[in-house]
Formats: sequence, C-alpha cells, structure tokens
Amino acid sequence: MNEHAFRSAAADAADRLADHWRSLAACELPVVPPGPPGTTLGVLPETAPERGEDLTDILDDTWRTIVPQLVHWQHPNFLGYFPAGNSPASVLAELVTAGLGVQGMMWSTSPAATELEQRVCDWLARALGLPARFTHASGRGGGVIQDSASSAALAAVAAALDRASGGRWREHGTEGRLRVYCTDQANHSVRKVVRVAGVGAPVLVPTVPGTHSMDPAALAGRLDADRAAGLVPAAVVATVGTTATCAIDPVPRIGAVCRDRGVWLHVDAAYAGSAALCPELRVADAEPDLADSYAVNAHKWMRTGIPCDILWVADRGELTGALGATSSYLRNDATDSGQVVDFKDWQLPLGRPMRALKLWYVLRAHGLEGLREVIRHDIRLAGLLASLVEREPGFRLVAHRLGLVVLRAETDEMTREVTRRLTGRPGVLCTPAVVDGRPVLRAALGSAYADETTVRRVWDTVRACAPPSP
Amino acid sequence: MNEHAFRSAAADAADRLADHWRSLAACELPVVPPGPPGTTLGVLPETAPERGEDLTDILDDTWRTIVPQLVHWQHPNFLGYFPAGNSPASVLAELVTAGLGVQGMMWSTSPAATELEQRVCDWLARALGLPARFTHASGRGGGVIQDSASSAALAAVAAALDRASGGRWREHGTEGRLRVYCTDQANHSVRKVVRVAGVGAPVLVPTVPGTHSMDPAALAGRLDADRAAGLVPAAVVATVGTTATCAIDPVPRIGAVCRDRGVWLHVDAAYAGSAALCPELRVADAEPDLADSYAVNAHKWMRTGIPCDILWVADRGELTGALGATSSYLRNDATDSGQVVDFKDWQLPLGRPMRALKLWYVLRAHGLEGLREVIRHDIRLAGLLASLVEREPGFRLVAHRLGLVVLRAETDEMTREVTRRLTGRPGVLCTPAVVDGRPVLRAALGSAYADETTVRRVWDTVRACAPPSP
Ligand SMILES: Cc1ncc(COP(=O)(O)O)c(C=O)c1O
Ligand SMILES: Cc1ncc(COP(=O)(O)O)c(C=O)c1O
Repeated sequence: MNEHAFRSAAADAADRLADHWRSLAACELPVVPPGPPGTTLGVLPETAPERGEDLTDILDDTWRTIVPQLVHWQHPNFLGYFPAGNSPASVLAELVTAGLGVQGMMWSTSPAATELEQRVCDWLARALGLPARFTHASGRGGGVIQDSASSAALAAVAAALDRASGGRWREHGTEGRLRVYCTDQANHSVRKVVRVAGVGAPVLVPTVPGTHSMDPAALAGRLDADRAAGLVPAAVVATVGTTATCAIDPVPRIGAVCRDRGVWLHVDAAYAGSAALCPELRVADAEPDLADSYAVNAHKWMRTGIPCDILWVADRGELTGALGATSSYLRNDATDSGQVVDFKDWQLPLGRPMRALKLWYVLRAHGLEGLREVIRHDIRLAGLLASLVEREPGFRLVAHRLGLVVLRAETDEMTREVTRRLTGRPGVLCTPAVVDGRPVLRAALGSAYADETTVRRVWDTVRACAPPSP
Repeated sequence: MNEHAFRSAAADAADRLADHWRSLAACELPVVPPGPPGTTLGVLPETAPERGEDLTDILDDTWRTIVPQLVHWQHPNFLGYFPAGNSPASVLAELVTAGLGVQGMMWSTSPAATELEQRVCDWLARALGLPARFTHASGRGGGVIQDSASSAALAAVAAALDRASGGRWREHGTEGRLRVYCTDQANHSVRKVVRVAGVGAPVLVPTVPGTHSMDPAALAGRLDADRAAGLVPAAVVATVGTTATCAIDPVPRIGAVCRDRGVWLHVDAAYAGSAALCPELRVADAEPDLADSYAVNAHKWMRTGIPCDILWVADRGELTGALGATSSYLRNDATDSGQVVDFKDWQLPLGRPMRALKLWYVLRAHGLEGLREVIRHDIRLAGLLASLVEREPGFRLVAHRLGLVVLRAETDEMTREVTRRLTGRPGVLCTPAVVDGRPVLRAALGSAYADETTVRRVWDTVRACAPPSP
C-alpha cells in the first residue's frame, strides 16, 4: 500500500466525515436506523477477502453499508443514555495517535506519551478544582487515562482490596470477607466491577428517602455492623451524577465515614464530573477532598471521543502496589531509577496506546472557556426542556439536574405507551429507565448540534406520542 | 470550530504522518529519544489554556514537542518487546471510527457496529483455522474485540470462576478456594489478571525441563491434588508463544486434562496466534479444539494498531452469564427479543467504541494473502538474524521461533555489557529478558519497513557492542 493512497484516502475520509456532520446537524438522517437484526450481517461476505482492496472502495462500503445502520450518537435529536462527547479536535487526535503508532506501557517505551499524560491529567485536575494531592505535581497522587469508568473503578477497587487486606489480597485473593459498598442507584457497571473483582455482589447502602443519594449514617452503621460481624469493609463507591436521575451522593460526609474507618472511597463522577469545569456548578456534596480516587468520563461531556476516562488517585503508591509488577522483559534503567511513572502499573492491561494526545488536543482546541461554554449551553437547553415538560398537561418532571431531564406521563401505562410510540419514531431518541419503581423517559442533552429549535422539535415529537388522557 | 478547519487539519495531519513514516523507513530518526525524565514535562505549560487554539498550532507542537521524545515502535530498527502492528488502513479506520463517534455497548445502540464485529471475528476465526464453535455463525460461541490480552484473559477468568463455583461467585465472590493455573513463562499480565480477579497468585505449573512449555502430566497431578485438598480449580491459562522465548504450551494435551475435570482452558496466543493465518505455520501443539477461550492481539502481528485483541469463546452463554447484567436504563426491545448480541455483556466496560471497523479495514486492505505475506516476511528476516547470530563467535542463539530471536553473549557478564552498550545506541532497540536464570537479548521482527539490510545493520550494531572475549 503506497503512502500516496493513504494521503488521498485520509483527505477523502475527512471530507466525508465533515459532510456527515453537516447532514447530522441538518437532521437529514434519522437517529435510529431502519434495519432489523441481521441487516448488516446479510450484506457482509461470509469470508475475508484473499486479495487486498482499495481504500476508496472500503470507504465507499462504509458509507453504503455501515453508516446507514448506525445509531447516530452525535445527532442533535439523540438524547439517549448519557452523551458520547466528540469534536473535530478529538477526531484529529485519534488520527495522529494512530498514525504515530507508539505503545506507552512504560515511560521508557515512549517518554513523551507518559509525560503528556501526567501533564494533561494535572491540567484537568486543576480545571475541575480537585484537591492538589490528586496531581502528579504533588509527587503523591496523579491521574491516569483509562478506557472507561468501569476500568477506573476496577483499578480503584483493586487498590482498596489490597489496602483492606494489608497486602494479603495480592497472594490470597478476596477470601470471602472483603466487602464493597454502593447504593442501588450506582451504575450497572459498579456491580459488574465488584463481581469481576471477586468480591461478589456489592453491599447496597440505603438512600435518604426521596433523594436517591446515599445515607451516610446508614453507611456508617452498615460498615460498623459488618466489621463487628467479622467482615472487612474495603471500599465505598459513591456516585456524583447517577445514571437514572443525576443524583449526588454526599461525598464529604461519606468521606468522613470512610476516613474514620480506613475504608477506600472511590467517586464515580462519570457524567456529572465534567460540570465542575464551571465554578458556578460546583456543589459542596460533590467535593472529593476526602476521596481516595475520583473518575470522570471525558468521553461523556467533554467533547472527547470514547474511550477516555480519567482516574485520579490521592496516593499513587496504593494503586501501583496493587497493579504493579514486573518481569525481566520489562526491566529498564528509567524504571529502576524510580524517577518515572510507568502507566502499566496504573491499569489492568499491559500495553496501551498514547492515550493523552486526544485530551491534549481537546483541551487546547476548545480552551477551558470553550468547554465551559459547551456545558453551560447544554444546561440551558436542559432547562428549556424541563420548563416545557412542566408546562405540559399530562406530563410530570421527575428529575432535572445539569443536562439531564427525566419525565413521565400521568400514569405508568401512559409512560410505557409514550415510550413505545417514540420507539417507532427514528428521528428522536430518548431512553427509558425506572425511578422509584415507575417507568420514566430520560433526555440528556449533549450533541454539539443541538439548539433551542432542537429541544422544541424533540419535545413536540415526545408529546405527540402521548395517548389521550384516560 | 468550523468544519473547514477540520478538513484542512486532517489532510495536513495525514501528510505529516506519511512524511513521518517515510523518515522512519529511511532511519532518519533514532528509535529511542534523547531526553532524560522531565524533558517533555519541562516544555508543557502548567495549566490548560483558557482560550481555544488553532489545530495547526497543535499539530506543530505535536511534531515539535511530542514526536522527538517518542520511542518509534514502527521504526525498522525497533526490535523490542513484541511488535506494535500498524498500517495505513488501520490509521484510516481510526479516523473514520472517531469521526462517526458512535457507542456500541448494545446492538440497539448501533446495530452495524455489533454485526460488523460479529462478522469480522468470524472472518478471522476461519482464517486462523479456529474450530467452528468459536464463530457467531455457529450460534453457540463467537468473538469479541477487547482492548488487550489482559482484558481478554480477565473476561475468560471471570467466566471460569462463574462456572467452577456453579454461579455462586456472582453473589459471593471467590471465597478463597478457587484457583487459576499457568506456568512461570506466562506473561506478566496473567498474574495481574488473576490477582485483579480476586484469586490471588496463580498456581505455577512446572514446565517440561528444557522446553519452557507446560507439563500436562504435572498439571493433571496438581489439579487433582488441589481438588483433593478442598480447593476448586477454575481455569488454566496456556500460552501459545510466550513472551520470553515464544514457547508453546501443548494445548491439546492440556485441553484433555481440563476437559476431564471441567476446568476452563483459556489460550493466550497474544503474539504467536497471528501466525496461524499461514497454514504451513500451524502446529499441532497450538490447536485450540479443546479450549474454552482463545485470544490473539491483532495489534501485535496483524498490521492493526493498538488497541485490538480478539477474544473467542466456545460458549457465549458462559461469558455473558458471568459478565452480563442489565438495568432499567439499558432495556430495549432488541435485547428482550434474544435475537441480538450485546457486546457490553462480553467485556468489563459498559461503553465501547465501534471496535470492528479497524479490523475490517485491515483485513480488506491487505487481504488474507497480504497479511500472510507480512508474517512470512518477518519470519524470513528472523531466520536471517538467527543465522547471523549462530555464525558469530562470542554469541549464542538461545531461542528462535517465528519472528522472535533470543540471544546471549558467551558469559552473563558479557551479555549484560552488550545490553548496557546497546542502550547507549539510540538507533537500535532490542530488549533484555531473563531465560533459565540467564540474561538474554530479544529481537522481534515486525516493522513494516524492515528488510534484509535492516537485519544486517541491526546485527552489526549489536555485535559491535560485544566486549572483547575474556
Ligand atoms: C454514573 C456512571 N458510571 C459509570 C458508567 C459506566 O461508564 P463506562 O461505560 O465508561 O464504563 C456510566 C455510563 O453511563 C455512568 O453513567
Ligand atoms: C504472550 C503475551 N500475553 C499477553 C500479553 C499482554 O498483552 P496486553 O498488553 O494486550 O494485555 C503479552 C504482551 O506482550 C504477551 O506477549
């Protein structure tokens, strides 16, 4: 494959993508594709080609076969789940990262990849107002880019188990007595992480009635009772911005409970964490001063493409004690000198791409002011949507915080019917959930192309799905 | 940010990358950068910019600040670790994947992303000669793209623990009696995976003396003794192509031992697995007919950029039983119908990018013949290097298989001295290891730009580092 073919294919792909974004912005494509299961499988050959094909043909097929059967997460009318952030700067960075093709498992295997990651994690820690001990510059803590909030939580839980067992976990495993705590509002992924860590199911701590937020007194009681029963509380996972309603567990009070008992506090701020870029949006309940680790998905609300989660820890030695290890084929002078950070010891996988370039491009291309404006814009749109919901007879606002609006119809049956009918309208996507046992619809703002017109259009579509009042 | 800026920045980046590849091919850059720890940190500002900057300035800084301080894994003289595969098609695919910006956690969140992944995993299973039950088409098994061999092994170990505990693990964890087995030649990552899974340290099974390959009889004895002692053997991790010497554990015999005892067999073929694209390179000892899961890093030896590991399982229900779970906010009709695959249930993280596009581009752009030619070419070069080593007084060939050549000098002190001197030569990178307690140097072929001249040049550099015979 010659290098000329690459130059022209890349320019071609960039043009197609820019055109694609324009057609998304103009709502020329549905959000949800039309085909039933098997549509794409049905047109893909059953075996790989023996002979190489032209990049242009592959691009043509991408737009012919793949693009029409995607859910367009960047579409202005996509309000499902939480947003999947993206931007031209992020896309450009993925191109450059891929093209440079380096592997940054250790400082010595690409010094600039590691030092850039240290620096952008510090940039972001400061921009979010995190405690100084979470920075590399402090010499004690630091940030590391993971692929997901799940992987970040797994790394934190591993460090917590190591601490709680006094290091015994490394050789002997969880041994059936270590426990991890969260509420029933924690993301689905927290349960999976705790299970995969060999702990089993997390202990569910009650929420304060009417709030969806963890009850710190109930947590304290539960930790003490478990310890009295011979169990070993290792970690609490608190959420800043739950998936269903964007509720906030009271991190400072939970932190005090954990600190008094030597229990690790991990804060999952996957979605809402980005809001702290705006000083006026910081809330006391979300302050991680007493946390041991803190994670934010830049790939949700920071115009950075998936995957990009940042995990910060207050004490890097606790993380690398749990996840570090070495082998003769990884030995090198820089590591032996103790002067460098080897990010392989901060994550599960051994190998890793140069992860920081993307965040560097996004932070520089937008500037902190630009990213704050993104968040303020989405929050304004969510405010508009919430006010439309409140004014609409037959609908109820269930929750509204930051860019998330949760609503229901008058009765559960009617909410289900709205959801059913909306599923038949591929031009808009809101996703269902259950809150307090009742079905709801979630709408999370985040598309770069959404504006007031979008919100009014989406709302017109949703309300048109309402069945007549009973 | 306007779309015009993106089009021109992407074309600019593609040109810079193509120029970069040309300068690597021409050895105009060293493999290893000159700066001591802190070089990059020293020139990066301490805080993120408030205002947005031009993409062109960011690209300029990338080439000014970052590129000169990278280890160039694509350089022809890079023979460290195992190769980090890459190709223009892979880079192009990363651009398109990023630009489309979809999230494929479930079929319903991007049908084509899921179905393309099913199909390319099936393509590759057939191309590698894997048993039909590892394909999605079989209706029983299937492949899934993970970020790393570590994550693949973790998923396999989770499924194994679930099976061995009869499902108890999901709620109660590992409880201190579940065991995982490998040899001391297994990659560093296997130990970390077993530790993170809450099992503690793996049980090390002896190798057959002189082979670095697991002894199946010793395994059987150990499994039976452990079971008799009240422990619960859950999984064996066998390696096809160990990191130190590319040794192969005898998978069929290990598989028979595991099958008779209901123990999960995971095969880590991270590096050597790609060689099976060439029928003449398939060896009976590597056949995974009795394995439960099998993983290959396409990002090592298949011209696919990191991250891209494929994990195949024979029984998808065992994997999704361990890693699956649902929440109200993830419910959808397609999942409820049972007709689709939701890859979130095949991995640790919840969210995931469209992972398959890259493999699709690479398989199509190269064709299977093209990828086979890559492997045969690298093997020819390794053969040349091995013959040069053998002919050289003062050096010994320690191991030579596929693209890996392992060598040492006459005495351990001399090998250490060669390694030390070679570290001072930034134009070539081979990495040290320890085999049978003795220091060695590893050289793994894999750069797209390497040829016979490269090998002779690398070898001239290495032998010039030999101290005079004692
Ligand atoms: C609060 C919260 N935590 C964790 C996650 C899981 O994130 P990931 O997909 O990065 O593992 C999500 C995903 O939406 C989330 O909303
Ligand atoms: C045999 C083997 N297994 C596993 C790994 C780890 O792979 P990853 O970095 O994808 O986790 C390696 C890395 O070199 C390896 O050589």
